[in-house]
Amino acid sequence: MSKIVKVDEAARKVQDATSSDHASCDRVGSLVARFDSPLELDCGKSLAPFDIAYQTYGTLNAAKSNAILVCHALTADQHVANDHPITGKPGWWTTLVGPGRPIDTNRFFVICSNVLGGCLGSTGPASIDAATGQPFGLNFPVITIGDMVDAQTRLIDRLGIDQLFSVIGGSMGGMQVLEWVARHGNRVFSAVPIATAAWHSAQNIAFHELGRQAVMADPNWRGGRYLEAGTSPRNGLAVARMAAHITYLSEDALQDKFGRSLQARTAKTFSFDADFQVESYLRHQGSTFVDRFDANSYLYITRALDYFDLKSEHGGILANAFKGTKTRFCVVSFTSDWLYPTRESRAIVQALNAVAANVSFVEIESSKGHDAFLLEEPELFATISGFINSAAERRGIALPAERH
Amino acid sequence: MSKIVKVDEAARKVQDATSSDHASCDRVGSLVARFDSPLELDCGKSLAPFDIAYQTYGTLNAAKSNAILVCHALTADQHVANDHPITGKPGWWTTLVGPGRPIDTNRFFVICSNVLGGCLGSTGPASIDAATGQPFGLNFPVITIGDMVDAQTRLIDRLGIDQLFSVIGGSMGGMQVLEWVARHGNRVFSAVPIATAAWHSAQNIAFHELGRQAVMADPNWRGGRYLEAGTSPRNGLAVARMAAHITYLSEDALQDKFGRSLQARTAKTFSFDADFQVESYLRHQGSTFVDRFDANSYLYITRALDYFDLKSEHGGILANAFKGTKTRFCVVSFTSDWLYPTRESRAIVQALNAVAANVSFVEIESSKGHDAFLLEEPELFATISGFINSAAERRGIALPAERH
Repeated sequence: MSKIVKVDEAARKVQDATSSDHASCDRVGSLVARFDSPLELDCGKSLAPFDIAYQTYGTLNAAKSNAILVCHALTADQHVANDHPITGKPGWWTTLVGPGRPIDTNRFFVICSNVLGGCLGSTGPASIDAATGQPFGLNFPVITIGDMVDAQTRLIDRLGIDQLFSVIGGSMGGMQVLEWVARHGNRVFSAVPIATAAWHSAQNIAFHELGRQAVMADPNWRGGRYLEAGTSPRNGLAVARMAAHITYLSEDALQDKFGRSLQARTAKTFSFDADFQVESYLRHQGSTFVDRFDANSYLYITRALDYFDLKSEHGGILANAFKGTKTRFCVVSFTSDWLYPTRESRAIVQALNAVAANVSFVEIESSKGHDAFLLEEPELFATISGFINSAAERRGIALPAERH
Repeated sequence: MSKIVKVDEAARKVQDATSSDHASCDRVGSLVARFDSPLELDCGKSLAPFDIAYQTYGTLNAAKSNAILVCHALTADQHVANDHPITGKPGWWTTLVGPGRPIDTNRFFVICSNVLGGCLGSTGPASIDAATGQPFGLNFPVITIGDMVDAQTRLIDRLGIDQLFSVIGGSMGGMQVLEWVARHGNRVFSAVPIATAAWHSAQNIAFHELGRQAVMADPNWRGGRYLEAGTSPRNGLAVARMAAHITYLSEDALQDKFGRSLQARTAKTFSFDADFQVESYLRHQGSTFVDRFDANSYLYITRALDYFDLKSEHGGILANAFKGTKTRFCVVSFTSDWLYPTRESRAIVQALNAVAANVSFVEIESSKGHDAFLLEEPELFATISGFINSAAERRGIALPAERH
């Protein structure tokens, strides 16, 4: 199977038919939907107009019952299953999404949008503030996971979809899944939150704060006005990315992958060169990230994550977030994930059990750490396939033509 | 008991009698011993002259059999049990060292020296290079834990001590303990490595590399020549410290200490202020650290830690490091330490068992993470007391006068 899945032309027609204000942008490589009606944000401000850039794969059926919304993680974007317009690399979830894959684009209409606050076509701090003609910078309002989800509902409305067959995502994507159910539960037939949590822990916040301080300590950040200054806080953002990257891998994964192996040398150099492979790897992760990501977006999205606390949003009782839910859930965690450990998924499952929700929970044995959800994990694929197929049967979604 | 333990005058007399080149320095608040004979370093270079700053507590007995060398961790120094000359805070191990404490200064002569490469009186990158009249900066040779230990042997020689009754330390201090036994085993009657490892893991290296990159990314670092430039890479060093600090606490400790509590406010501010207590705490840790620590020393000492690998130094078999040892060992780990987890201590114990060493091993139940070794941990105190007292009996060291 080719790793490149082009935007489906039929789906594009659906979009064009439902909206007149889609613009394609070469840099973001996506359709961009503009919304003029203000979005009321959790901070009390409102935002208008705003753009949401998105990709779709597959075809929306006549009943509009086969749409799956994929929610992306902190530094990912809408390019789930096509080559990335900036890096040229395959989409970030080609393991899971594509023709014949567990999320089968021959069968389902898959949508993924760049989050509000992002930097790949959706409105964020790098966008032009109509009021000033300058990039928002820190004048962009501080947004929440809930705001991201509310913005997504506008896109789903625009596509003419009442109820999503499924909302699925890992990490921050999983938080959006939970918030979709909490805020718009009747629009979600099934939900798959993976490697995620219902609130950010003190350690989660600590790692993000470290990253933000690294960005803001870079003099090229210039109080957030680096775009006007023609500078870029590359060094600070690279350090932030390095810190985050350590949390995405388990200690065992780092040890298995690198151990104490030296990088293209036979002996230690007794210098500050990247002697060890793990050093070289981290430096590479940092430096490639800054080419595709906006530093202020990083600040805003990490802030949204740190603010996320579905429990306190519901009077200190997580189960209240899911009261009366009819959504079917499949909650997935990984044994070696120390960013959002299994106990955080268990808290979600317990809350769902407390409201008698339809929930299955799978903890997958993996040594790969948090990033396992993005990697080749057969047990994950089997879990998602099984859940999606049985939910599709309940929803009466036909099997793809070639399987009839 | 007063937390301030003044340098013992009797001990000072011992030192004065054995050396004529001790100088006291107000900033470092310690005696400083100068050594003119070159120190041969692992990198192949030699260093001369060099200084070692140190503190002592208690009195060396006539047999010179009651000396305990305390080895300090990454960012600590020689001020174990007296107020710090810069911060004014109590010594870093007053919980364990002092009159009537587990390491009883009424009974033992306790020595602690600032490590080679440090910044509190021992020669390091901020010292003046006699060849240029300028601070060494990155011209300082890259040193190892073994080099630190070899420098310490000079001080012990100078104090006229053949064999140390005990060498004890936590974290990087524990690595020095192991290296003392590996290199100078006949000079170590007993050894107490705490919360440590025999080699740095890929994750350990990753966190240090992140810190170094943060320092070096700060334009005020100026390629290591910030002292001449009159600048200071404060921001970068603060970020490095924040990253390290996260690793010193367990997730539970962070959660128990801070959770998602807000800092002196009742609601989120929807800004990038330190809304959460854990953010405020980390910022404070970062900013206070830079007042007392040299950025280049941080680079050099973290590098020494990353280079540490007692196993590869001994042909890939850790047990070889301890072959024929007569030293008595007490190895201590903490359940919630994820920087140097218990399995790393177990590897040390297994190597010691393989050479039939006299070793006791205690894993202490604690939720405090790596920093537990510096905190109020009654089980640690009981363990150290018991081990030290029984070893002292074997060594024939008299009980303190008041207990006769």
